[in-house]
Amino acid sequence: MSNRLGSQTLTFSRRPRVLSSYTLVGPIEGKGPHALDFDEILPDDVLGQKTPEKTERLMLEMAVEKTLRHRNTKSEEVHFILAGDLLNQITSSSFAASTYTIPFLGIYGACSTFAQGIGLGAALLQGDFAEKVLIGTASHYQTAERQFRYPIELNVQHISSNHHTVTGAGAALLGFGDEGPQISYATFGHIVDMGLKDAHDMGSAMAPAAYSTIKMHLQDTGRSLEDYDMILTGDLGKQGRKMLRLLLEKDGLKGLERLQDGGSQIYSEGQKAGAGGSGAACIAVMALGYGLNMLKSAKAERILIVATGALLSALTVLQGETIPCVAHAIAFEA
Amino acid sequence: MSNRLGSQTLTFSRRPRVLSSYTLVGPIEGKGPHALDFDEILPDDVLGQKTPEKTERLMLEMAVEKTLRHRNTKSEEVHFILAGDLLNQITSSSFAASTYTIPFLGIYGACSTFAQGIGLGAALLQGDFAEKVLIGTASHYQTAERQFRYPIELNVQHISSNHHTVTGAGAALLGFGDEGPQISYATFGHIVDMGLKDAHDMGSAMAPAAYSTIKMHLQDTGRSLEDYDMILTGDLGKQGRKMLRLLLEKDGLKGLERLQDGGSQIYSEGQKAGAGGSGAACIAVMALGYGLNMLKSAKAERILIVATGALLSALTVLQGETIPCVAHAIAFEA
Repeated sequence: MSNRLGSQTLTFSRRPRVLSSYTLVGPIEGKGPHALDFDEILPDDVLGQKTPEKTERLMLEMAVEKTLRHRNTKSEEVHFILAGDLLNQITSSSFAASTYTIPFLGIYGACSTFAQGIGLGAALLQGDFAEKVLIGTASHYQTAERQFRYPIELNVQHISSNHHTVTGAGAALLGFGDEGPQISYATFGHIVDMGLKDAHDMGSAMAPAAYSTIKMHLQDTGRSLEDYDMILTGDLGKQGRKMLRLLLEKDGLKGLERLQDGGSQIYSEGQKAGAGGSGAACIAVMALGYGLNMLKSAKAERILIVATGALLSALTVLQGETIPCVAHAIAFEA
Repeated sequence: MSNRLGSQTLTFSRRPRVLSSYTLVGPIEGKGPHALDFDEILPDDVLGQKTPEKTERLMLEMAVEKTLRHRNTKSEEVHFILAGDLLNQITSSSFAASTYTIPFLGIYGACSTFAQGIGLGAALLQGDFAEKVLIGTASHYQTAERQFRYPIELNVQHISSNHHTVTGAGAALLGFGDEGPQISYATFGHIVDMGLKDAHDMGSAMAPAAYSTIKMHLQDTGRSLEDYDMILTGDLGKQGRKMLRLLLEKDGLKGLERLQDGGSQIYSEGQKAGAGGSGAACIAVMALGYGLNMLKSAKAERILIVATGALLSALTVLQGETIPCVAHAIAFEA
């Protein structure tokens, strides 16, 4: 029996599970409405490191270490680590992974990296290539600002459609067992580029990618939005969230009230975080924190995580290129 | 039966094949000793584009397009495209992939990216997640120089341990069929960081990673070096190649004369290319060109490609960090 369903969806009949996970966020995220969903709120966003890049790496190491410790898993039991981040050449991930002798697979999908990792990790489990895999990602407001935008010291004012990169990290240990949320499907998206070029409004650029992947997921699996208690998109923010809703509404889909967006919800209105959160850590901590907590507390039986990524670079923006976007969807079941 | 062998090796009993592939290189690579192994030698390294980044992207698109055309394959028949490159946020790959509606999985392993893609692609086939997958990668001397080193216009003199980034692209269509080289094993390496910091001598930094992955591959599969007609490492260059040989010699391994290095061999001595070639395209064109030609012409029955990657960034170098390295090995059989 094929493990592919329709044209873009992987199906996991062996039901790999999230055996353990760990989410940590910075102090600003710790003041947001989802503070209680995260495992740890850091006292500051420096952690005694000399550069924010070192802090980002350390956060990822902490998330991985605590994910392993939570189930008393030794790193030798883990067959692969799939990790990625926003930094050039995904150095936070490769430096963090260099702590272990676990085979390393670097992945990149901007803010969709986490879902790509979960999907590929589940495939390695379903395909009997591994018994345990680790997925990790991290981002930091300061590393992203100086790489993609302006040096923090300039104190450039943000506009309302700007996203605020989440400082945090998330890691998940996937494997088989009796406990933990199950992964039933992964729908990997193709790239959608509607020709938008405004790097200060990535939500609008990403919404059509989320739309495309959600539609494909429903078509491939034969499910409807109403089959999910929550569809949690990643980092669309206030503009992108509206646009996605409009696109789905046009198709006459029911269950739009089940749509939530990790980026729009991680900060409160009073925090003045523009369009909302973004960064590789955003959907990771929202999915592993808020999303899985919904399943664990029986508030939801099935959720769909739709992580979106804007695949631009600082250079492509300067060269006047458009913003290619992608979205990957993962179905988790209690 | 598990599809994993030992601790780091995936085994592909269904024997996915390279159904078609395409390699193209720039004019300098076209003057090297392996010119006849490549499918196309470009007349110049600009291709009428306004920036070298656009040229790099175009080369990848050409390689993918010609790989598909070679077997009259429509892009709709391809289930996933796995691609990566050296540019920040792997933009050559995501922009090239935006031409298609094939689900896109971005990968990053620096100059080892190609082997990571082949290994993951073969796993998606073996695991019955796909029937056809595309793997692609590209690099360009000018984009790499200005991103990692100095603007070309400065004409900074290179030292002898410097690598010369290969201008070129390679793509491969993997699937099942009656023809084409088979993929039997993929050994994914863990990160090896011996504390070296000299970004002008990446060969020495990468050699221990190649050593680690080769040793693991032999241990996992029960094979010896002599079971391969050629072991083609990627981009170690003159320094790294020597170091790898010394490390393997110390272990008393036989068959060291079968070791070749893609980076050391892509340019001739007279081309003054320092330690040799590097870049994501280097091992891709050498493996798909030189390596597969050896199999197709029955000069070899089995080859092992060991692609190495130095996972540094311009920023980690400036911040005084070490160079974490990785190597992934793929066994091809006639």
